[in-house]
Amino acid sequence: MEPSALRKLLEQVRDGSVSPDDAVSRLRHMPFEDLGFAKVDHHRRLRAGMPEVIFSRGKTPEQVAKIFQSLAKHGGNVLATRADQSHFRAVKRLVRKAEYRESAQAVVLRHDCTIYGKGAIVIVSAGTSDIPIAEEALVTAEIMGNKVAHLYDVGVAGIHRLLSNHNVIDDARVVIVCAGMEGALPSVVGGLVRVPVIAVPTSIGYGASFNGLAALLGMLNSCASNVTVVNIDNGFGAGYVASMINRL
Amino acid sequence: MEPSALRKLLEQVRDGSVSPDDAVSRLRHMPFEDLGFAKVDHHRRLRAGMPEVIFSRGKTPEQVAKIFQSLAKHGGNVLATRADQSHFRAVKRLVRKAEYRESAQAVVLRHDCTIYGKGAIVIVSAGTSDIPIAEEALVTAEIMGNKVAHLYDVGVAGIHRLLSNHNVIDDARVVIVCAGMEGALPSVVGGLVRVPVIAVPTSIGYGASFNGLAALLGMLNSCASNVTVVNIDNGFGAGYVASMINRL
Amino acid sequence: MEPSALRKLLEQVRDGSVSPDDAVSRLRHMPFEDLGFAKVDHHRRLRAGMPEVIFSRGKTPEQVAKIFQSLAKHGGNVLATRADQSHFRAVKRLVRKAEYRESAQAVVLRHDCTIYGKGAIVIVSAGTSDIPIAEEALVTAEIMGNKVAHLYDVGVAGIHRLLSNHNVIDDARVVIVCAGMEGALPSVVGGLVRVPVIAVPTSIGYGASFNGLAALLGMLNSCASNVTVVNIDNGFGAGYVASMINRL
Amino acid sequence: MEPSALRKLLEQVRDGSVSPDDAVSRLRHMPFEDLGFAKVDHHRRLRAGMPEVIFSRGKTPEQVAKIFQSLAKHGGNVLATRADQSHFRAVKRLVRKAEYRESAQAVVLRHDCTIYGKGAIVIVSAGTSDIPIAEEALVTAEIMGNKVAHLYDVGVAGIHRLLSNHNVIDDARVVIVCAGMEGALPSVVGGLVRVPVIAVPTSIGYGASFNGLAALLGMLNSCASNVTVVNIDNGFGAGYVASMINRL
Amino acid sequence: MEPSALRKLLEQVRDGSVSPDDAVSRLRHMPFEDLGFAKVDHHRRLRAGMPEVIFSRGKTPEQVAKIFQSLAKHGGNVLATRADQSHFRAVKRLVRKAEYRESAQAVVLRHDCTIYGKGAIVIVSAGTSDIPIAEEALVTAEIMGNKVAHLYDVGVAGIHRLLSNHNVIDDARVVIVCAGMEGALPSVVGGLVRVPVIAVPTSIGYGASFNGLAALLGMLNSCASNVTVVNIDNGFGAGYVASMINRL
Amino acid sequence: MEPSALRKLLEQVRDGSVSPDDAVSRLRHMPFEDLGFAKVDHHRRLRAGMPEVIFSRGKTPEQVAKIFQSLAKHGGNVLATRADQSHFRAVKRLVRKAEYRESAQAVVLRHDCTIYGKGAIVIVSAGTSDIPIAEEALVTAEIMGNKVAHLYDVGVAGIHRLLSNHNVIDDARVVIVCAGMEGALPSVVGGLVRVPVIAVPTSIGYGASFNGLAALLGMLNSCASNVTVVNIDNGFGAGYVASMINRL
Amino acid sequence: MEPSALRKLLEQVRDGSVSPDDAVSRLRHMPFEDLGFAKVDHHRRLRAGMPEVIFSRGKTPEQVAKIFQSLAKHGGNVLATRADQSHFRAVKRLVRKAEYRESAQAVVLRHDCTIYGKGAIVIVSAGTSDIPIAEEALVTAEIMGNKVAHLYDVGVAGIHRLLSNHNVIDDARVVIVCAGMEGALPSVVGGLVRVPVIAVPTSIGYGASFNGLAALLGMLNSCASNVTVVNIDNGFGAGYVASMINRL
Amino acid sequence: MEPSALRKLLEQVRDGSVSPDDAVSRLRHMPFEDLGFAKVDHHRRLRAGMPEVIFSRGKTPEQVAKIFQSLAKHGGNVLATRADQSHFRAVKRLVRKAEYRESAQAVVLRHDCTIYGKGAIVIVSAGTSDIPIAEEALVTAEIMGNKVAHLYDVGVAGIHRLLSNHNVIDDARVVIVCAGMEGALPSVVGGLVRVPVIAVPTSIGYGASFNGLAALLGMLNSCASNVTVVNIDNGFGAGYVASMINRL
Repeated sequence: MEPSALRKLLEQVRDGSVSPDDAVSRLRHMPFEDLGFAKVDHHRRLRAGMPEVIFSRGKTPEQVAKIFQSLAKHGGNVLATRADQSHFRAVKRLVRKAEYRESAQAVVLRHDCTIYGKGAIVIVSAGTSDIPIAEEALVTAEIMGNKVAHLYDVGVAGIHRLLSNHNVIDDARVVIVCAGMEGALPSVVGGLVRVPVIAVPTSIGYGASFNGLAALLGMLNSCASNVTVVNIDNGFGAGYVASMINRL
Repeated sequence: MEPSALRKLLEQVRDGSVSPDDAVSRLRHMPFEDLGFAKVDHHRRLRAGMPEVIFSRGKTPEQVAKIFQSLAKHGGNVLATRADQSHFRAVKRLVRKAEYRESAQAVVLRHDCTIYGKGAIVIVSAGTSDIPIAEEALVTAEIMGNKVAHLYDVGVAGIHRLLSNHNVIDDARVVIVCAGMEGALPSVVGGLVRVPVIAVPTSIGYGASFNGLAALLGMLNSCASNVTVVNIDNGFGAGYVASMINRL
Repeated sequence: MEPSALRKLLEQVRDGSVSPDDAVSRLRHMPFEDLGFAKVDHHRRLRAGMPEVIFSRGKTPEQVAKIFQSLAKHGGNVLATRADQSHFRAVKRLVRKAEYRESAQAVVLRHDCTIYGKGAIVIVSAGTSDIPIAEEALVTAEIMGNKVAHLYDVGVAGIHRLLSNHNVIDDARVVIVCAGMEGALPSVVGGLVRVPVIAVPTSIGYGASFNGLAALLGMLNSCASNVTVVNIDNGFGAGYVASMINRL
Repeated sequence: MEPSALRKLLEQVRDGSVSPDDAVSRLRHMPFEDLGFAKVDHHRRLRAGMPEVIFSRGKTPEQVAKIFQSLAKHGGNVLATRADQSHFRAVKRLVRKAEYRESAQAVVLRHDCTIYGKGAIVIVSAGTSDIPIAEEALVTAEIMGNKVAHLYDVGVAGIHRLLSNHNVIDDARVVIVCAGMEGALPSVVGGLVRVPVIAVPTSIGYGASFNGLAALLGMLNSCASNVTVVNIDNGFGAGYVASMINRL
Repeated sequence: MEPSALRKLLEQVRDGSVSPDDAVSRLRHMPFEDLGFAKVDHHRRLRAGMPEVIFSRGKTPEQVAKIFQSLAKHGGNVLATRADQSHFRAVKRLVRKAEYRESAQAVVLRHDCTIYGKGAIVIVSAGTSDIPIAEEALVTAEIMGNKVAHLYDVGVAGIHRLLSNHNVIDDARVVIVCAGMEGALPSVVGGLVRVPVIAVPTSIGYGASFNGLAALLGMLNSCASNVTVVNIDNGFGAGYVASMINRL
Repeated sequence: MEPSALRKLLEQVRDGSVSPDDAVSRLRHMPFEDLGFAKVDHHRRLRAGMPEVIFSRGKTPEQVAKIFQSLAKHGGNVLATRADQSHFRAVKRLVRKAEYRESAQAVVLRHDCTIYGKGAIVIVSAGTSDIPIAEEALVTAEIMGNKVAHLYDVGVAGIHRLLSNHNVIDDARVVIVCAGMEGALPSVVGGLVRVPVIAVPTSIGYGASFNGLAALLGMLNSCASNVTVVNIDNGFGAGYVASMINRL
Repeated sequence: MEPSALRKLLEQVRDGSVSPDDAVSRLRHMPFEDLGFAKVDHHRRLRAGMPEVIFSRGKTPEQVAKIFQSLAKHGGNVLATRADQSHFRAVKRLVRKAEYRESAQAVVLRHDCTIYGKGAIVIVSAGTSDIPIAEEALVTAEIMGNKVAHLYDVGVAGIHRLLSNHNVIDDARVVIVCAGMEGALPSVVGGLVRVPVIAVPTSIGYGASFNGLAALLGMLNSCASNVTVVNIDNGFGAGYVASMINRL
Repeated sequence: MEPSALRKLLEQVRDGSVSPDDAVSRLRHMPFEDLGFAKVDHHRRLRAGMPEVIFSRGKTPEQVAKIFQSLAKHGGNVLATRADQSHFRAVKRLVRKAEYRESAQAVVLRHDCTIYGKGAIVIVSAGTSDIPIAEEALVTAEIMGNKVAHLYDVGVAGIHRLLSNHNVIDDARVVIVCAGMEGALPSVVGGLVRVPVIAVPTSIGYGASFNGLAALLGMLNSCASNVTVVNIDNGFGAGYVASMINRL
């Protein structure tokens, strides 16, 4: 049922050609979702600056490029995660202003550079191997309009490195912590700050890391009460929810 | 928003005190769910004979009895699964006509004895220990208005017992198969019949049965293509979906 | 023991050269399976329109082609699932009328176009990545003689898309729901319809999806009682059992 | 090293009895943590209104009562989670003003009733069995100084109940969603709101729910990007981190 | 179809009242299983001395006693495993000659004391806690008519104890090895003997033994090629299959 | 310490040049294993016809070829499992009489063709995909000197195929059953025969087969008491232990 | 074969009543383990001060008491772990000098108070709930003759508490770290010290701690290279191996 | 805060321009980590001879070479684990003196050949496939300044090979045991020696070895109390911690 159909029905009510009772009856069987679409528009405003996102893995360069081009037309920021060089080249051919963030394996198009976040989002990571996931979180937070800072390679086995740089995390309004192996870093960071910590287990490790399961379980059992967890390697999700918190 | 509110709005449209455009706008922000309730009513008719159900485990006898009494007032059949004698006695005090099916650990109230199912539902079980789950499925199917038959204790290690009684399952429009341990029975039954087979893994077993996991995995990997699976020990669910299929 | 052997024995009984008692004795030790083969023939009629099926993964193009050609001679429909382009080309060389359904990764030969199903089978899927599995279910249902419809990309995080299109699923006699990640869609669909829902967990996802385990567990624990589950990525099985239900 | 020891060293520097270079050297080997204690004080102010918390399970009533009494002397709010009636009675004997929230299995003492949160925290739960965990989250959020609302028993298999009440969640600044079984509710809620959603898997279910594992995996794989997850049954953690977000 | 029915049919063939062709047709649809029963009788002879078995766990003393009494009437040996004192007392009341083997938690009735096994079955166990399972295997082997010997408490961490007593296992025709914790003993024993070794993982252990999973996996991965494995704590199964091998 | 060294010591005792006490002392510190080596020789005779075995996977063709050549010099049979064509070609170059059993992925050299087994070993498999593992078991049993027969493609969903051919398994002294997916076949076969059944779970399947875990758990939970289990895909182990049983 | 038997044989060799060749032959078949027993004696000296140990769980008070009494006669220290008050009372009745260490749930008898360890063993634990396991390690280390110190309740979410007390661990020759939940503490401690760290995962936690699995996996994946791990809740094992290292 | 800043503050105290009280206050807020750096230096001395380590897997040859070159400048030993020939060639081009240990898949540079360890480290492995991990442990122990010995291919199924060579392990101050499959070797070795045993589960095996999980669980459940465990395939970690113990 089109909105125009709704208007037509109401005009018939005004005309008297349809009685209110009949209209009630028709409306009750009307697919309510069409009305719901208004809601979606309302949402769109709330979503200002939130990127349209493409998960590139498992898609061909051509597929990613076409979707990217199509999303770029909406005028907002566009983000393609898990994209390699070949994905980027294909996108670049269609969308000139697209850029490649190699460390994050992301293709980005930034139309809207407004800062929407009220404070800083700080991304912390345990080892150098965790950096790609951390960078995915960082790029996501940036493209969604946040000031971001990062503190990398501060694993818990060398706790002084983290403590020496605590001023970086002291300024955060939200902290994202990426760690593989035993996934202990969010607990330590959670104890040092008084803001929400979003923990991202990474699949870094071998043997009994079981592709990130060890880190995931560790983070879910964190003894720091300000820690919540996203899926293994989900840097994008962490950047997204951190941005949402930072706009509150 | 009450339906009366909706009628009032439409009367205002007829009166001309609200323009169609304004009404469209208001309706688009109207909680569509209220309209949706009509749908629920519509559903209720489809659901004729379907029991109201209470999962008794973890509830006190008094809690179960109160909910049972309240549901009994709707005039339909009522089923309380995983109920022990103390649950039954509490229900019985409030609802005189309630009966206890000990083998199924179920309390039932059967107001509506119409047969809604077009054919027979046959419940098959592997070992004597699987019978309580099989009986839960059987009672569920009965109270939902189906002819039911059963064939118990026909485990695959004595395949002749099953084959000797295949006439029982040959008459089925839907077959429910309950089995613990290795959960192999649904595959064998599935190969013997040409109707849908609903497999119920039971938690019967020990050691590497891992409380029904072995049976569950076995059933999900069935080489018989007419087998679908429900949760471990979910006799009720099997009886419910079998009843739904049998009404088609 | 050939049927002719059986006839011969009976002729001997008629002749009096074998006494009834001796015949009873011989028959009791006669391999009963030969008699059983009659049963198989009987079944074959019930199976009208059911495809012969080849699981192509792990087979060479040549192997698939030879089996396909051999099955095609039976005169029924033939379906090769999980087939890539190279499988198809090999089949095409031997069986001219074979077609490739790329989206379903299936090679099909459709001799019998009769509609055997009494109603429509609707295939619903959560994300675009789930479409290949959904299409496998769809092609299976089609080749088994059903009217089919589909509703794709209606994940639960955008519930309005599903609700806006509920008319598609309202017409179903059986619904198949394919979903990866959290596997929540079957529960929501199950709550909207009053027909059986067959849930297909897909291996789509990463990290804690554990190749479809998360979706599988979610579906097994569905709070909608009309949901049954098949193996991860088993689009074929879902299409098959839905067809069987739709013939009832 | 006591602060007095530090002062003494500095007085020796002023006196000239220790050279600045020597003092640098000594300070570099000084246990830095003592200095760090200042930091803790600073933190304490940030923590205004945050409750002291006791996890009662596995502790005797007497143990809980003693710890409760001791914490009550600090003058802040006190919360004992997973407490039964016997825990409460023991606490009540020592701390007159303690109250028992039976639905949340919590003993609370509320000295500080200031509202610290900037908006409302809404707690949503799927089934009636999930309510105790939801209430734990609610009590935690209340005692930490937040306006709270709740919406219970809105499981995804009856999606209209959730949609009919979406105005409750529309007002939230943070949403907590508790669900067992398939754990699908956070994804649906996440799609309806544009604020952070904290998902709490509960151990409600049986069979393949594996004590909450199914719900946990479902939530970690949520297709809604604004969802983060805490440990199974960790209502307290969800209430705590939601409060922290709500103060931002 | 009763055998008498079969005879009747054949008499009709002899009479000429049924033609051989009609008889063939009827026989082909005759439930073949009835013929199969002859087979079962044949088997019974092979099974001489094999006990009738009752798994007592989860059954009331009265239930076990009734089944025991009923099986005792067949005249063969009877074995009730996982039986406690209360099970025994109930059995004893009905079956005077029943005996309790406390170490094996078994009630036995031994009518038939023939030795059917050609050699000795030796039961080896790792720790004292594994003895109940070892004894269950031993009692099973005894009641099935085997010479048995045992060698207990010879865990691999004190390898000399095993080696000092290797003469015990040197005499075995089949060896059963019961071990919990790391389950290493079957590999060592397997390397010392040249006869089949049946490994029984026990649920003895704690923590990462995961109720016998560690031992089970260890035994399945045994580097000794003469080791096969039964379910966790399945002493009965090991005794049964060892007896079967020993009769070959 | 060589046996000659031992004799020398004893000669010194006879000579009186070493006192008995000194000899006791020396002997007590003598590596007892050297004495043990006699034992090994003794074993070697028992092992007549048992093949020397090479697990080829993960080894280069050259490595396999060298080991094969070296073992061939011992004069016994040699078996290289999990060998591909390139492994075979490399072996063939060095050992002219080596043969390739493609269906079993095995290279064999058969010097000793004696039949050591007292009866027949029958290998049964469920689906065509299980055949390579079944063939590995078959080749192993053959090269160890057994009469072997096989019965392939008799999955439980078409139980009549198995029953029609039960005469094949009726002749077995030991049965090996290979099955993937739900792993139900050993239970059915176990119920049909009265000899030991060795179950080999295969990694055939997808999704919830978890690379053979479903089949493995199913077999461990078999309701047939004459079933023991070896590791997933361990056709060699099954053939080996069956051979050992068949020599008893 | 007793050593005296060995001497006798050698005397016969000296006498000439047994030839060297015969003696060689007899010795080669002599159970080598008897020689090996000398080795055990040698070991016993190395084991000075090592306690005899009883694992009390699953044993009755009487059983523990009898074993304890019997071991006490050897004159060394005796340790009964996982013992409750009833175990202790039973022991006390038989062995007057036995003491109960309630915090460690251990009964100890300390005959030998020698200090065998060269340095101090420091036991660190994360939360108060981990203390019983930590105390088990501590009592074990003490009774094996070590200087011990401990540092409890220094969880990683309050890292300053650990750092403030690092002098305690700086003095350790071996460190034992007990932690449940996320099990992160060993990594942090491992980074602070340059001695071996033995990590003990505890079963403390709930939900996704899976009875200590999360902590276990975390510790196995520790990014600190000086960490090794023992079984969940194995405080005794940690104390034992630490003692062994401390004697080196 | 730079050390120079600290000195400046202290000079101001000496000057009287800053009072001791003010200085105390400033120092308490001073980032304590800078002081902590002194600690790191102190550690560096303790770490004499400990190699700088690169985990090569997942890094390009160029990346490994650059890091290697950079670490080589520190003057200590350098170790690159999990390095293949291409990694080595790239390193060799930049660091002439680097050597490749093929069996250990390690590139090493040994500047410092001092022996720091007080005794011998003995590496034991079960099968030939475990050797690469054993060699990684061996190379690590060597480069850290230890005398090392090894005893390979002494699996528990041929226990005599281990016993015949026990003199090799008798000399050890620390033993490292590498084993895949059932992981039983550490228990046996642990029972033979009276020194710490570090167990390394390897991922060798197939099927139910689950990539080393079976071996890992086996080792964690070892009945030998002197066994501790590191991660699957973590030869480096075992070599590292053994070296640390050997320096005590």
